[in-house]
Amino acid sequence: MKEIIFVGLGLNDEKGVSIRGLEEIKSAKNVFIELYTNLMPNFSIDNLRKISGKNPYILSRYELEEEKGEIILKAAERGKTIFLVPGDPLIATTHISLRLEAKKRKIKTSVIHGTSVISAIIGATGLHKNFSETPYDVIAQNKINGLHTLCLLDINAKKKQFLSINDALKILLDIETKRKQKLVNFDTLVVGAARIGSISQFIKADYLSDLIKTNFGGPPQSLIFPGELHFMETEALISFAKAPREIMEVKK
Amino acid sequence: MKEIIFVGLGLNDEKGVSIRGLEEIKSAKNVFIELYTNLMPNFSIDNLRKISGKNPYILSRYELEEEKGEIILKAAERGKTIFLVPGDPLIATTHISLRLEAKKRKIKTSVIHGTSVISAIIGATGLHKNFSETPYDVIAQNKINGLHTLCLLDINAKKKQFLSINDALKILLDIETKRKQKLVNFDTLVVGAARIGSISQFIKADYLSDLIKTNFGGPPQSLIFPGELHFMETEALISFAKAPREIMEVKK
Repeated sequence: MKEIIFVGLGLNDEKGVSIRGLEEIKSAKNVFIELYTNLMPNFSIDNLRKISGKNPYILSRYELEEEKGEIILKAAERGKTIFLVPGDPLIATTHISLRLEAKKRKIKTSVIHGTSVISAIIGATGLHKNFSETPYDVIAQNKINGLHTLCLLDINAKKKQFLSINDALKILLDIETKRKQKLVNFDTLVVGAARIGSISQFIKADYLSDLIKTNFGGPPQSLIFPGELHFMETEALISFAKAPREIMEVKK
Repeated sequence: MKEIIFVGLGLNDEKGVSIRGLEEIKSAKNVFIELYTNLMPNFSIDNLRKISGKNPYILSRYELEEEKGEIILKAAERGKTIFLVPGDPLIATTHISLRLEAKKRKIKTSVIHGTSVISAIIGATGLHKNFSETPYDVIAQNKINGLHTLCLLDINAKKKQFLSINDALKILLDIETKRKQKLVNFDTLVVGAARIGSISQFIKADYLSDLIKTNFGGPPQSLIFPGELHFMETEALISFAKAPREIMEVKK
């Protein structure tokens, strides 16, 4: 099967990879690694060889950025291919480009996430994100600044209740009717994401009028209100989140 | 040894934990788990028992929030205690409270990070953070909105070069002399973080005048410019990042 699995190695050494990630490495036909987009202080390729039984090909920046990862794409034509990445994969645009190209060539891609400094530093310093009770205001403020807004929707595990994307959008539309800032309406582009990192992960970017009717299944669910979109972000939303192609013209 | 290790379980199932995390579970005296601050769609406590050989005690919200995790703190007095948490630990304030209390009781704490939706969703949707070339402007804009700014400092793995916290602060001071917005000066509270997630992790919050002289060692390094600080964030900075106690009075 033509396949590339991006596997995150985490922050520190070869033991930061998840159990599932290690299993995938062990059963792969081809294993590649890049070690230049991020730095893992105690990483040892020898130890990775020992625990995985594989000898990963170390990619140079040239092979990834000038040659656009052609060597990985070619390998993926021949069978399951792992691409090991420091931290959490697809934070670097290089990886997103590769994934977009794989998709064009009908190569299946998936991600086994790893630990990222973006969340780890919140825990390590205690500077948690300010989860506001007033998401409408946060979306409004971020929009002014061109920033994306991520809304993690509440769950109550004990009562098996959760706030769905659909209900969250209804609440925001209710607030809109009071506030009338033209922030959230049926034409707003929204990204819904459910069960990220699981086999049943479901992501859909669409206008609110359609997204509010989309069934995302079980929790956990999140919403993103995109700010200004870069070209590659637009392309990624169309390719990975099935956004309507016309957003390419509307947003720059 | 009196110890609590917070271990992140990641996003999906029992195979999301890192190899190091699993090793620590196997060698622990006591293992606790909470499953209510987040929801892992395919998690099975039975499978976790099988792969770890341990039978974790499942904590209720009441035990953690009303009783403030006393049962974990008591267990930690008797030996190495693991606290398993969905996602990445210490994003929930409940966990930060517990860590602060452990510190007061002279119980050693550490974190083995896990995958978090905060980074995973960036990769999954392709909506990467807008890493601006103009950090001064971003810090300024965030400050107006009371938000923290995280600056991931550049590394060049091939040339073994990296931008240090000290040099980044010097650059920002240079920009300040031109811009004169009173954003970055010797009295600014800044948080420096090096090698997050590694054994040599080093975090220090201090006024710029002192931080600029602090030796953070090797890469990777990051800077945070705090926005408005909540009480618990201030306490966490003093307790985990050795911030001067007086920030308790200055910042509210």
